[in-house]
Amino acid sequence: MGRPVMIAIAGDSAAGKTTLTRGIAKALGQDRATAICVDDYHKYDREERRSVPFTVLNPDCNYMDIMEQHLQLLALGRPILKPVYDHSAGKLMRPVPVEPRDFVIVEGLLPLHSKLSRACFDITVFLDPPEAIRREWKLRRDCKDRGYSPEQVLAELERREPEAAAYIRPQRQWADITIRFAPVAGHGSAADTPLSAEILLRPTIVHPDLSHVLTDDDRRTVHLKLIRDGDGRPVDALHVHGYAPRGDSEVVEKAIWEQLSMDQGTAPPDSLGEYAPGKRSEALAIAQLLLLWHLLEART
Amino acid sequence: MGRPVMIAIAGDSAAGKTTLTRGIAKALGQDRATAICVDDYHKYDREERRSVPFTVLNPDCNYMDIMEQHLQLLALGRPILKPVYDHSAGKLMRPVPVEPRDFVIVEGLLPLHSKLSRACFDITVFLDPPEAIRREWKLRRDCKDRGYSPEQVLAELERREPEAAAYIRPQRQWADITIRFAPVAGHGSAADTPLSAEILLRPTIVHPDLSHVLTDDDRRTVHLKLIRDGDGRPVDALHVHGYAPRGDSEVVEKAIWEQLSMDQGTAPPDSLGEYAPGKRSEALAIAQLLLLWHLLEART
Repeated sequence: MGRPVMIAIAGDSAAGKTTLTRGIAKALGQDRATAICVDDYHKYDREERRSVPFTVLNPDCNYMDIMEQHLQLLALGRPILKPVYDHSAGKLMRPVPVEPRDFVIVEGLLPLHSKLSRACFDITVFLDPPEAIRREWKLRRDCKDRGYSPEQVLAELERREPEAAAYIRPQRQWADITIRFAPVAGHGSAADTPLSAEILLRPTIVHPDLSHVLTDDDRRTVHLKLIRDGDGRPVDALHVHGYAPRGDSEVVEKAIWEQLSMDQGTAPPDSLGEYAPGKRSEALAIAQLLLLWHLLEART
Repeated sequence: MGRPVMIAIAGDSAAGKTTLTRGIAKALGQDRATAICVDDYHKYDREERRSVPFTVLNPDCNYMDIMEQHLQLLALGRPILKPVYDHSAGKLMRPVPVEPRDFVIVEGLLPLHSKLSRACFDITVFLDPPEAIRREWKLRRDCKDRGYSPEQVLAELERREPEAAAYIRPQRQWADITIRFAPVAGHGSAADTPLSAEILLRPTIVHPDLSHVLTDDDRRTVHLKLIRDGDGRPVDALHVHGYAPRGDSEVVEKAIWEQLSMDQGTAPPDSLGEYAPGKRSEALAIAQLLLLWHLLEART
């Protein structure tokens, strides 16, 4: 068994991790990609959590040592017996066997929390949508799929905030790539507004060179700008406007795809960019294609 | 975290593994001993097993690769998240964290099946009671504790026999110590008959020297005889008669206890030999004391 390429997609609850992951896993195919969620390493079920003094965002609420162990095993190409947390029922279930395929996509709340787990990844990603957007997404999903009332979700968001600040958001500093989906200024945040993507490419890994197809002219719907991140570190900021016409995004997609070392066919997979059945976002497609590029390149 | 001493206690269903383990774990104390059962690595619950072409005795019915992995982790002093099979309900449950303490006692159907798992143990034990006795024990336990009818147990024993021959009994060859509890010839096998123990000590590990307190005179209630095992290999056979008076067994116990390198107090722990609440067997006590000696010696 060879060693797989491992990518971490970290972010707070309802930050869009699953949507981002799904398109990449689909593009790679089930026989090449294994996707797991490390929120399965919760120690307590929903009922038990009522009597513990912290939320699921807290490392103490998760088997972090076992998560690290399992990530190390997967990174070595070994199988694991992964615990299972059923989000809809809020219960811990019987574990399932997981075999790492060529690519392992690990998403969840805390995959970048510890040095030991970070060391398992070839590529690290952090999703940081504006809080207002994330709250809206969480409200919608938790009420629809997880049986909570809106009041419960809002109270939980409140309760989680100190731990989000202490444990979730600090993981951003360890990401090679951060992705922020946000509504275009002045266009509101209704469900149907195509979101823009602000993708920060840190020089901690080698990214595809886009300087020959993009400029830093921010009147263009897709542009690339050298900026300083909040912490002062230099970073390339790739901006994809929510209303970018397909033609503009295709130029970037083509440029990324052509920089693959191994021939992967003439066009990027068309499973990218889907954020709801039948709905496509150019911003999402480009974000996914970038991650796909990194996965395929790390394999060569 | 240091590496623990690991002992395997293998044998067929209802061979007396739990009874043997319990007294040793109790003697060591909860803060020094971790006891696990590797039957927890069953792949299927009772309901699912109705539609698979093998019984739980078959390695294919168990996550053997994960069992090996977990034994290796424990042997290195690392924690595991152990699956849980609930025997009374016949269901797979949420896993539990297990930390290896100074001594790890691993009992179950298949801990000696593979070379990789055998390599994890300092001491290997196989329990092989006569089939008639084991069937009686299984019948009693499965009807009382696991909700089966006598007919179901007998049918299951029948169904399991080919796999017991193929996978369980071959593990005997890998044991440093085999233990056979059997009724004294001519005394029947009623529940209250004190059983004799025939303990084979293979020269694969160093045993306490009993030749200075025992002879091979088989008219004595406790004796030690050099014999050939069924496969022709030379082995020391320690026989403890079911009706051995306490005085006879105490001579042996004292001799074993005195050969410990580290001072463990003047007398062996009195938790040994209990096979039912308030019932003591000298044969069981000596078997347990021998294993305890090996565990303590391997620690020094």
